[in-house]
Amino acid sequence: MTRRNLLYAQSGGVTAVINASAAAVIETARRHPERIGAVYGARHGILGVLAEDLVDTAALDAAALTSLALTPGGAFGSCRFDIDAPADNPAQYDRLFAVFAAHDIGYFLYNGGNGSMDTVAKLSQAARQRGYPLVCIGVPKTVDNDLEGTDCSPGFGSAAKYVATAMLETSLDLIAMSGRTGRIFVMEVMGRNAGWLAAATALAGEGEDEPPHLILLPEVPFVEEPFLERVRAVVDRLGYCTVTVSEGIRRPDGSLVMEQHHDARGHVQLGGAGQFIARLVHERLGYKHHWAIPDYLQRAAGHLVSATDLAQARAVGQAAVEFALGGRDAVMPAIRRDGDAPYRWSVDAVDVHAIANLERVVPAHFIRADGLHVTPAALDYLRPLVEGEVIRPYRNGLPYYPTPQLPALARKLPAQ
Amino acid sequence: MTRRNLLYAQSGGVTAVINASAAAVIETARRHPERIGAVYGARHGILGVLAEDLVDTAALDAAALTSLALTPGGAFGSCRFDIDAPADNPAQYDRLFAVFAAHDIGYFLYNGGNGSMDTVAKLSQAARQRGYPLVCIGVPKTVDNDLEGTDCSPGFGSAAKYVATAMLETSLDLIAMSGRTGRIFVMEVMGRNAGWLAAATALAGEGEDEPPHLILLPEVPFVEEPFLERVRAVVDRLGYCTVTVSEGIRRPDGSLVMEQHHDARGHVQLGGAGQFIARLVHERLGYKHHWAIPDYLQRAAGHLVSATDLAQARAVGQAAVEFALGGRDAVMPAIRRDGDAPYRWSVDAVDVHAIANLERVVPAHFIRADGLHVTPAALDYLRPLVEGEVIRPYRNGLPYYPTPQLPALARKLPAQ
Repeated sequence: MTRRNLLYAQSGGVTAVINASAAAVIETARRHPERIGAVYGARHGILGVLAEDLVDTAALDAAALTSLALTPGGAFGSCRFDIDAPADNPAQYDRLFAVFAAHDIGYFLYNGGNGSMDTVAKLSQAARQRGYPLVCIGVPKTVDNDLEGTDCSPGFGSAAKYVATAMLETSLDLIAMSGRTGRIFVMEVMGRNAGWLAAATALAGEGEDEPPHLILLPEVPFVEEPFLERVRAVVDRLGYCTVTVSEGIRRPDGSLVMEQHHDARGHVQLGGAGQFIARLVHERLGYKHHWAIPDYLQRAAGHLVSATDLAQARAVGQAAVEFALGGRDAVMPAIRRDGDAPYRWSVDAVDVHAIANLERVVPAHFIRADGLHVTPAALDYLRPLVEGEVIRPYRNGLPYYPTPQLPALARKLPAQ
Repeated sequence: MTRRNLLYAQSGGVTAVINASAAAVIETARRHPERIGAVYGARHGILGVLAEDLVDTAALDAAALTSLALTPGGAFGSCRFDIDAPADNPAQYDRLFAVFAAHDIGYFLYNGGNGSMDTVAKLSQAARQRGYPLVCIGVPKTVDNDLEGTDCSPGFGSAAKYVATAMLETSLDLIAMSGRTGRIFVMEVMGRNAGWLAAATALAGEGEDEPPHLILLPEVPFVEEPFLERVRAVVDRLGYCTVTVSEGIRRPDGSLVMEQHHDARGHVQLGGAGQFIARLVHERLGYKHHWAIPDYLQRAAGHLVSATDLAQARAVGQAAVEFALGGRDAVMPAIRRDGDAPYRWSVDAVDVHAIANLERVVPAHFIRADGLHVTPAALDYLRPLVEGEVIRPYRNGLPYYPTPQLPALARKLPAQ
């Protein structure tokens, strides 16, 4: 058997547990020295491959890998960059395969979401066309939980635990502060097209009168009047109302509720839906209003990861290496749900071509008939994903996140 | 010795540990059955006294008090309400003392900030004038850390731990996501006039190139150009920049940087300074921008309390009862710093008349000469306050916050 090097990279928005997948990839690869030589990383995803900006993971000992697995963010650096179709930009692929060849890369593992799976699919195809022996495997990751082909995505469970905890805790604050004038608290969570994280805040309460009282999902067109009527009804009953808002909620005409300026590359900069909703309620109903935007906090909270999510992030990292060694190509390890109560799961392989660029949104049977909350079926789905706490090291009162030592590899090619 | 009842109430913005003070008050009072009869609570602070809306704490057993101490928010309900001066509104005081007399209240403990200490001072004075035997004690609490007469305020250490952790974790996310275009992350924290929480985020990093790179305090007038120059310098060096913004930063003319509409009672509704700063940088320097507004999350995060803060919240609750029994009146237990390394502290009594309505801001020697960060002396002050983690119960993956059983007392007076 030939012995080739493995290249791992991270892509898309990072999560609290993506580095646990990285650690599992490295640990598993080291258990197969007969097949896998060095384990390298690319800085900032596929951009690091194009730039031949590679690092060596050899200096990470067992303790460093344990720390890495408990560190949020992407230790290798991430990117938001889609490679072109092979036919459109052969020079790009010439460069990618030159870098692969220069460092004897036989395995490429890309840790990302649906866009990254497209990169895996394209590279796999290009390798076959070029006759370059490269095994390409996707490693799933996204707080948005919008990957198709898997029951859930590593990263989601921890973000879900964070936003549900935030909703639970802030609601205790809101209840304490509420007097006779009526008070509303709005929390805006991530989710441009898929409302999974908004749905997860439902775990904070049980029953109609517990927070969050209303959940606005991007899957459901937002109409002001019925929403305001429901807010008023909740405040009339309780004196307060909590609302979760997905950043990407849209009006019936498809426009974003809080359309903001576009950035230089044409991307919509979101972040105003929560503020918009809070002010709408304040202006129309006169209630006191507060809003929170956790933003990066919800996907970076290493101090509050879900033990289930952490285990799954590790499992997909391990499976990715095992699939690569088992002759699979262009697949992604997926989480299968084998049982709800008790929750049981396993890892399976799905074809990246079948899932690349797809977005799995919250299905209709998880959304309450009035569109303003979720169903018991959604709670059954969500509950196990936030289960379990992880005891982690602290130093000087803060989580201890040592910087992993990842020395740069010497370049072998001219810069581009 | 006469045996009288004790009335406890909460006021102002609540914290992650105010209920620990409540639990300590109840536990300590129960150790003195010869002097203290029932321990009652007023709902929503002094408003609950005026409304004779009282509850009994007798049903809280040891386990319930342990849970209460680890539950954020204000279990008794809080309020933002200042009583009038006795001379201006004798009817208000007639009502307050009628309620005290109806329930044989001999001890009134008010858990709040500088406004609440003013209530304690006024009630103490009025009781003497009326010849009503009432001992009035303030119990300190505020995430803003702006109480005079104490080295720190219970509630602050936990909020400080939360915002410092948030800055640390989000910076790992930011670093991973940063490419060559420049990226800024802004976190807006609480603090209308005092920048203690903003200053506390400095604990996330060590040295100039670690987050947060810049801290905007309400104590320092905000001027755009020097700020933007510093942001540019940081991004030129690192590719990214993190900024902490106090909600209450002001321009040199005294106006709020993000002046928003006033609510019905004339209060300024803050919450836009972080967004303003992020957009300013984006528009002027072209960087990608994200901003977070933890809002209630920072003061309600029972899952991440500081063990030091929790211990101090308990200590001031205990001391308040002991001061009351020791013949003190119109005092507040204060935290004294007896040593920095190792940190040692004790509880002392301060006269509420000397501190009521004062606001302690971040002193000049804690602010870096350029006004855009804090000094090593500030870090020495802050470091011990976030120290220590608390192992707490979880259920179904979320912190377990059972609702304390606080049955209403039968009213003895006609409603007003």
